[in-house]
Amino acid sequence: MSARKIAVLGASGYTGADAVRLLARHPHVQIAALTANTHAGKAVSDVFPHFFPLDLAMLTAWEEVDWAALDAVFCGLPHGTTQEIIAAVLKANPLIRVLDMSADFRLRDQAAYAQWYGHEHRAAELQEEAVYGLTELYRQQITAARLVACPGCYPTAVLLALVPLVKAGLVDAHDLVIDAKSGVTGAGRGLKQKTLFSEAGEGLSPYSIARHRHTAEIDQEISVAAGKAVTVNFTPHLIPMARGELCTCYVRLDGAGVDDLRAALEEAYRGEPFVHVAQKAVVPQTQNVRGSNYVQIGVFDDRIKGRAIVIATLDNLVKGSAGQAIQNMNLMFGWPETTGLEQIALFP
Amino acid sequence: MSARKIAVLGASGYTGADAVRLLARHPHVQIAALTANTHAGKAVSDVFPHFFPLDLAMLTAWEEVDWAALDAVFCGLPHGTTQEIIAAVLKANPLIRVLDMSADFRLRDQAAYAQWYGHEHRAAELQEEAVYGLTELYRQQITAARLVACPGCYPTAVLLALVPLVKAGLVDAHDLVIDAKSGVTGAGRGLKQKTLFSEAGEGLSPYSIARHRHTAEIDQEISVAAGKAVTVNFTPHLIPMARGELCTCYVRLDGAGVDDLRAALEEAYRGEPFVHVAQKAVVPQTQNVRGSNYVQIGVFDDRIKGRAIVIATLDNLVKGSAGQAIQNMNLMFGWPETTGLEQIALFP
Amino acid sequence: MSARKIAVLGASGYTGADAVRLLARHPHVQIAALTANTHAGKAVSDVFPHFFPLDLAMLTAWEEVDWAALDAVFCGLPHGTTQEIIAAVLKANPLIRVLDMSADFRLRDQAAYAQWYGHEHRAAELQEEAVYGLTELYRQQITAARLVACPGCYPTAVLLALVPLVKAGLVDAHDLVIDAKSGVTGAGRGLKQKTLFSEAGEGLSPYSIARHRHTAEIDQEISVAAGKAVTVNFTPHLIPMARGELCTCYVRLDGAGVDDLRAALEEAYRGEPFVHVAQKAVVPQTQNVRGSNYVQIGVFDDRIKGRAIVIATLDNLVKGSAGQAIQNMNLMFGWPETTGLEQIALFP
Amino acid sequence: MSARKIAVLGASGYTGADAVRLLARHPHVQIAALTANTHAGKAVSDVFPHFFPLDLAMLTAWEEVDWAALDAVFCGLPHGTTQEIIAAVLKANPLIRVLDMSADFRLRDQAAYAQWYGHEHRAAELQEEAVYGLTELYRQQITAARLVACPGCYPTAVLLALVPLVKAGLVDAHDLVIDAKSGVTGAGRGLKQKTLFSEAGEGLSPYSIARHRHTAEIDQEISVAAGKAVTVNFTPHLIPMARGELCTCYVRLDGAGVDDLRAALEEAYRGEPFVHVAQKAVVPQTQNVRGSNYVQIGVFDDRIKGRAIVIATLDNLVKGSAGQAIQNMNLMFGWPETTGLEQIALFP
Repeated sequence: MSARKIAVLGASGYTGADAVRLLARHPHVQIAALTANTHAGKAVSDVFPHFFPLDLAMLTAWEEVDWAALDAVFCGLPHGTTQEIIAAVLKANPLIRVLDMSADFRLRDQAAYAQWYGHEHRAAELQEEAVYGLTELYRQQITAARLVACPGCYPTAVLLALVPLVKAGLVDAHDLVIDAKSGVTGAGRGLKQKTLFSEAGEGLSPYSIARHRHTAEIDQEISVAAGKAVTVNFTPHLIPMARGELCTCYVRLDGAGVDDLRAALEEAYRGEPFVHVAQKAVVPQTQNVRGSNYVQIGVFDDRIKGRAIVIATLDNLVKGSAGQAIQNMNLMFGWPETTGLEQIALFP
Repeated sequence: MSARKIAVLGASGYTGADAVRLLARHPHVQIAALTANTHAGKAVSDVFPHFFPLDLAMLTAWEEVDWAALDAVFCGLPHGTTQEIIAAVLKANPLIRVLDMSADFRLRDQAAYAQWYGHEHRAAELQEEAVYGLTELYRQQITAARLVACPGCYPTAVLLALVPLVKAGLVDAHDLVIDAKSGVTGAGRGLKQKTLFSEAGEGLSPYSIARHRHTAEIDQEISVAAGKAVTVNFTPHLIPMARGELCTCYVRLDGAGVDDLRAALEEAYRGEPFVHVAQKAVVPQTQNVRGSNYVQIGVFDDRIKGRAIVIATLDNLVKGSAGQAIQNMNLMFGWPETTGLEQIALFP
Repeated sequence: MSARKIAVLGASGYTGADAVRLLARHPHVQIAALTANTHAGKAVSDVFPHFFPLDLAMLTAWEEVDWAALDAVFCGLPHGTTQEIIAAVLKANPLIRVLDMSADFRLRDQAAYAQWYGHEHRAAELQEEAVYGLTELYRQQITAARLVACPGCYPTAVLLALVPLVKAGLVDAHDLVIDAKSGVTGAGRGLKQKTLFSEAGEGLSPYSIARHRHTAEIDQEISVAAGKAVTVNFTPHLIPMARGELCTCYVRLDGAGVDDLRAALEEAYRGEPFVHVAQKAVVPQTQNVRGSNYVQIGVFDDRIKGRAIVIATLDNLVKGSAGQAIQNMNLMFGWPETTGLEQIALFP
Repeated sequence: MSARKIAVLGASGYTGADAVRLLARHPHVQIAALTANTHAGKAVSDVFPHFFPLDLAMLTAWEEVDWAALDAVFCGLPHGTTQEIIAAVLKANPLIRVLDMSADFRLRDQAAYAQWYGHEHRAAELQEEAVYGLTELYRQQITAARLVACPGCYPTAVLLALVPLVKAGLVDAHDLVIDAKSGVTGAGRGLKQKTLFSEAGEGLSPYSIARHRHTAEIDQEISVAAGKAVTVNFTPHLIPMARGELCTCYVRLDGAGVDDLRAALEEAYRGEPFVHVAQKAVVPQTQNVRGSNYVQIGVFDDRIKGRAIVIATLDNLVKGSAGQAIQNMNLMFGWPETTGLEQIALFP
C-alpha cells in the first residue's frame, strides 16, 4: 500500500506537534507538508527541538501548500481562522479529507456558534456538512465524512462518560455537575501570563467558570442523547501538570444504581479499543493515560442517596485532540482504527 | 511580658514542622521542647534541614518532657496515638493548654468516632471536653478551652464556605457536592508509594471517594448548622503541588441568588482578619494563600438554574492545621489573634 | 520611631512583588507608592491576587510619584530603563536612598557595561557613585551609600561562596567552573515561550552558555578578590521549580585542603545572620532557603586530587534580590540588619 | 517470524515497567512471564495501573518461571540480588539471553566491585563473561553475547559524550568535571523520604557527592578509552522532574578547539540511529528526549581559555535503561536495532 500524503496545519502549536509526533511513526502516511505561518521557512526542530530525530519538511505558510497532491489534512489552527482556511482547502481539492482539531465546526447550531464564539460562522455550508468526530459515538458518519470536527478535549471525556447514561435514562440530564481538571497544555502554546511556569506551578485555579466554550459542545451532545434541551454545569480547573485531564461528574440517578451505570458503560464500550471502563474500586487517574489514546472511566457511589459519581480521564493532546483525529483518519481510509495509536501511557 | 513556654509533639511531621516554623518567630512564645519519638536524640535540623538558622532544642521522646514547666502543647501526632498521650499530658499538668492538630478529638459523637476510625475512643471524657477549633465559628468556646481539637484542612475550607449559607437557610443542606483538591503534603510525611514524586507528579488522582475521614467532621458541623442530620458528598483529589487546597462546592439554592450568598458570607466574616470573601468575578486560587493563614472564598453562578458554586482555598498546613492552632493559642492567651501569623502568601 | 516612607518601582514584576511581600510586614516602613507603568490605575491585587489581604496604594506611573515625600525607593525595573529613571528620582530628591535591584549600576567599568548590555551607560556619574550591594562584602560602604546596586541572584550565591577563598589564595582564580541551576522566576514575569509551564516543566535546559550577563559581575568581583583579571566559567541551567538557586562550584586548590576551605568560610561569615556554612557532610539544597533570606554554603571533597567542590544555595527573589535590598536598607537606616527578614524557609 | 518469548524480572519497578511498556508493542517478542516476588499473584495493573489496556500475564515469583521456554530475560532487579538469580537462570537455560539492567555485572574488576558495592561478587565467572552493554561502544561484543550488563543511566550519557574525545586525545582525561542532573525516577520506586513529592518537588539537591556508584563505571570506561587509570569528578543532583537526565561535562582541551570536539563526535556517531550530535548553538535539554531512546549531545565554548563544555541528555529509563536493553536484544537476535524503539519524545 503506498502511503497517503498528509499535511499538518498549525505545526507550531501543541496539538499540531502531537499530530506530527504520532503521524511521523504512522505506517501508512507520509507527512508531505507542515505549515506555521509565523514560522514559515524555519525547520520544525527550530520550533519543536524534540523533533531532532525526524527528517521533516520545512515549515511553510498554508497558502503555499499544493492541496491537489494531498489525501488528508490535519488542522491545528486557532478557532476563528480555521473555517476560512478549510473552505479554501476544500475548494482547491474537494476530495481531500479534513481532520479539524479546532472548534470551528463542532457546533451544529449557527446561533449557538455565534453566541459562544462572538461572530457569525463564515463557512456555514461546511458547518452543516461537518461530522462531530467523537469516534465512539459517530463512527459510521465519520467513516463516510469529508470534514470531521474533532471534539474538544473536555467534551471527549465528558461525553464518553455521560452519553450512554443519559441515553439509557439512567441519570437526570438536568442535574449534571461536571468538575473538570486539566493540565496546562490545554491552554495552548500562546504566551499568557497565567500559563507561565511561575504562575501555574505549585497551585491550582478554577477558570472560565460557567462560561468555558467547551460547554456548548457538551450541551449539544447531551441534549441529543437526552432528546431534550439540556444545560450542564461545567467548571474547569487549571492543574500544575502539562498533559492530562480528568472530569469528575456528579449525577442524580433516575432509579438506577451504581452497578447499572457501570453495566451500561461496559455495554456501550464493549470491543472499543480505546475506551476502558474500570472495574469496581479502580480509580481513574491521568497518569494512566499520559501520552496515549486511551480513556479510562470509573463509576462510584456517592454518599448522598440517589446520586453517583462518574470519572473519566484522558490525555488532552491525544484522545482529546491529535490522537482522536488520527483515529478518525484511520476510519476514513479503512485502516485498523488503532493504527499508529497503540502507545501505552508514559508512566512515570 | 515573659514568654509562654510551649512544646511541639510530632516535630518530625509536616504539621509539626509548620508549627515550629511559625512559633520560632512568634514574639510571645518560647519553644521549650520538641518531640519525635523515632528521632529522639537528633537535632531538629537532621530531620528538617531548613531549620538550620534556628537554635532549637534537641528532639526527645514525648515521655521525657517536663509538662509542669509548660504553658501549652501543640500536638502533631498521628490520630489514634494522640488521645492517650494527651490524656497523660493533661494528667501531668491539668492547666496546660492543648492544641491538638490530629483528628482524635474532632468528633463529638463516640459512635461516629468508632465508625470512622475503627476503634472505640480511648479518652472519652476528654473528647467531651474538647472544643472544635474552627476559630471563626467557635471563638468564644476556644478562648475558654483547655483542649482544642483543631479541624482537618478540608473541613476548615468547606465549613468556612458553607456553614453561614446553611445556617441562613440559603442552600439545601441535603444536596451539597464538594469536589476537593489538595496538595501532597496533606498526605503527611509517611512513606507511601502514592506520594512519591514519580507517582504523584505530572498527574492527578481522586482518592478515598465517599470515604475520606474528614467527611465525618463536615457532616457533623453542617448538621449542627442545618439543625438536622446531613450527609454530604465529599470527593478529594490529589494534585501535583506540595501545599494548598481548594474546595469547589456545588450547592442548590433555596430561593436565594448568588449575590445573597456572597452577602451572607461577607456578613459572617466582616472584621475577620483571615477569612476574605472575594469580590464578584475574583477567582480564589491556592497560589493566593500558600504559606499563609488566609482563606479566600468566592461565589459564582452555576449554568444550571437554581444552583450556585462556592469556592474556598487555604494552605492545608497553615490555616488548615498549624496556623489555625496558633490562632487558637493566641485567643487562649489573650494575644491579638493575628500574632505571628501575618505572613503574606509566598507567590510565586 | 515614625515609619520611613518608601516606594517600590516595578511592582508588577516578581522582584517588585517580593519586595512588597516583605516590606508590607516590615515594622519600620510604610509603603507610600507602588508603580507599574503598564498597569497604572489598577489595584495591586489585580496584578498579584495574593496581595488580597493587604491594603495597598493603587499602582501609578513612576512619573506621578512625589519623590520629595519619600525616604527610600526600591527599584525592580528592567535593566536599561532603570538608569534614567533613577537619575530623575535622585534629581527630584537628592537625599532619597535607592535600592536598585536591576543590573544597571552593578558594573564599575563602563566598557564592560557597554559590552555586556549593548549600549553606553546613560548615567555614568551615578554608576561611579553606586555601591555594589552584596551586604556581607560591602557592609561599610552600603551603610554610607545613597545608591546601592544590589547584585544579581547568581553573583550573590557565587561570590559568597568563592570570594573568601580567592582572597585567601586557597583556590586558583583562573580555574573556577560554576555550574548554576535556577528556578524559573529568575527569568522574570515577562511572557517568553521557554518559561511557559508546558515548556519549562518536567525538564531542564542549560541556557546562555558562556554569555549570561551575571558573569560580568562575577568576573568583576572575583578579579577584585584575586587582585588580577579573572575569567570564570559560568553555566546556568533552568530547573522546573519557581524559586531557588544552587551553584555548584568546582575549584582547583592551591595547596589547601577541603577543611581549610570550610574554615576560611566559617571565619568569613562568623556572626553573619544570613550566611551559614554547613557542617561537614551537610548538603545545601534549595528547599532549605525557599522564601527566606538565608544562604547555605557547603564544601566537599572532589575525587580528582587537588580539586574541591563548593556549593551555595539561596532564594533568588529574596537574598538574591528583594531580601538583600531590604537588608541593605536596614543598614542604611541604622536598623538591625535582620529586621523584617527573619522568616524561616517555607518547606515543604 | 514467530515471536521470541521473553520475561521481565522486577516488573514492579520503574525500569521493569518501562521494559514492559516498550516490549508490549515490540513486533517480534511475546511477554511470557513477569516477576515481582513481593507482588506475586497480582495483576500487573495492580502495581502499574497504566497498563490497563494490556492483557499481560500475572505477576509471579521468579522461582516459578519456566526458563527453558524462554529466549531472553530482562532483569530489573535491585543490585546485589541480581547476580545470584541470573546465575540460576543461566544454569536452568544456558542458551537464554540475559539483558541485565542492574549494576551487578558492569564492573570488570572484582576489587572495584567489592569496594563500591560492599561485598565480594557472588558470580565471578559470569562477571567475566558479561559484556558492558553500551550499544554504540560495544556493538560487536553485544551481538555475540549471552549476558549483557546494560550501563547505568548516568554512565550512558557521560560515556557517549566523552569516550570519543578521550580516545582521540582531544581532552585531558585527568581533568573531567561532570555535573550531572537527574529526574527522580533515577532513584527507583522504593520508599525513601527524599523522593517524596513534598520533599523532592520545587527544589533541587546535590547527592552522593564524590561517591555515587555510577562513578565506578565511568572511571572504568574512561580509563579504557584513555589507556590509563583515570579518576573523574562526578556530582549528581536530584531535579524536580520524573524522567530525564542531563550531564554537563567540563573538559580541558589538549590543544583542540570546540569544533574539533564536535567533529570527533559527529564522526563517532555517523549513522547511529539514536545518538545525535546537535548543531552548533543547539542546546540539549531533557524535554527533547523524554520517553524516547534518543541521546542528544552538544559542544560549547568555555569562557576559560583551553576549556570546553560537552552536554549530553537522555531519558534515564529508556536509553539509560530499558530502551538500551531492548536495543541490545535487537542486536542479539539480528533484528534492526531500532525495532520497537522509534517513539519520538513526548513533549510537552
